[in-house]
Amino acid sequence: MSLFHKKTAISVQTVRRLPQYLRVLYNLHAYGRLLVSSTELAEETQVPPIVIKKDLQTVHAPSKMRAGFKVQGSIEAIENFLGWNNLNKAFLVGAGHLGAALLGFSGFKNHGLEIVAAFDTHPQRVGNEINGIHIYHTAQLKSIISEKKLKIAVLTVPVSAAQGITDTLVGCGIKAIWNFAPVKLNVPADVIVQQEDIAAGLAELCARLKAHE
Amino acid sequence: MSLFHKKTAISVQTVRRLPQYLRVLYNLHAYGRLLVSSTELAEETQVPPIVIKKDLQTVHAPSKMRAGFKVQGSIEAIENFLGWNNLNKAFLVGAGHLGAALLGFSGFKNHGLEIVAAFDTHPQRVGNEINGIHIYHTAQLKSIISEKKLKIAVLTVPVSAAQGITDTLVGCGIKAIWNFAPVKLNVPADVIVQQEDIAAGLAELCARLKAHE
Repeated sequence: MSLFHKKTAISVQTVRRLPQYLRVLYNLHAYGRLLVSSTELAEETQVPPIVIKKDLQTVHAPSKMRAGFKVQGSIEAIENFLGWNNLNKAFLVGAGHLGAALLGFSGFKNHGLEIVAAFDTHPQRVGNEINGIHIYHTAQLKSIISEKKLKIAVLTVPVSAAQGITDTLVGCGIKAIWNFAPVKLNVPADVIVQQEDIAAGLAELCARLKAHE
Repeated sequence: MSLFHKKTAISVQTVRRLPQYLRVLYNLHAYGRLLVSSTELAEETQVPPIVIKKDLQTVHAPSKMRAGFKVQGSIEAIENFLGWNNLNKAFLVGAGHLGAALLGFSGFKNHGLEIVAAFDTHPQRVGNEINGIHIYHTAQLKSIISEKKLKIAVLTVPVSAAQGITDTLVGCGIKAIWNFAPVKLNVPADVIVQQEDIAAGLAELCARLKAHE
């Protein structure tokens, strides 16, 4: 199933595997390696070599005949495909435990995302900083979004607050929401919602455990 | 691609969608609804009706001809498929922000997982409780795992600590690890590692944003 525009013609599964390849490629690059085979990438990612080959060809990663894929060229191809060579300015709403965990994760900058502001309503959180990111009161959403020209919202609020905040975000012109609340958000057709579902991974684990018994 | 034993013959993608159906079915059940169509499920999940139909048939959800799937029967079929009608006792290692967020999530009990203990090395965390779950020192891993007969480890430690803790867990006989650290764990062939990759969702979001431009 492809969630994307026809011109991309690339499956969700391929896209979701790209960060795994990227992590291995960054490591190899740090060690000065120039080429990597799909077999070697397979050992580091648990993805079959044939799938890796197809995925990398899909994003036009350069290869050198049978010697394998070019390390630096493949990094650039994936970053370019995902737009991770440019930083998208994002903000986070809901600075509870999960929100704080995400604010503390410095790795997002390698993944095209720079969280520059956070919002909450809790008096003990508003005014604080996490990992250098200031926590504003949710009442300031509209003015800060417009002032800082923010495009992507990371939503880590409780289920009960998710739709209300979403309506506010849509009203502010936000076009992309990364939603960690386990609830379907109702948005206009031109707003992208990326639903993060912790239960999906747990389902996979449980099904594998059952098949394993 | 099927990660599972051949006898199950069900794709990872199907398994990962099941919790979404379950959430809608729980809601419908709470409102006393007896039947639901795949079209209605599609509206609530953003999964195409034809895919939903196939997924539910795969887990043997009972249907009533053209009237749709039976709500309660479908809940039971999914729970049974995932083993979520029985609680697996689990523990969490690494009670930082992400760990605390997971410990605070009461929904796991509906998803077959009961986290009954947490472990950390930080003096300010050891001895505390989060959501009624006691935080032990990591040095006590072996004795508590054996005493409480724990099967599943939830790993929310920093990347640098992940492999070391994993070796300890494998030594304790743990057969399933739900890993939130963005690093590949080396384990014996009979140990299941479910890798949670936050960057996968972000990649999907970025690819959709680019296709949208």
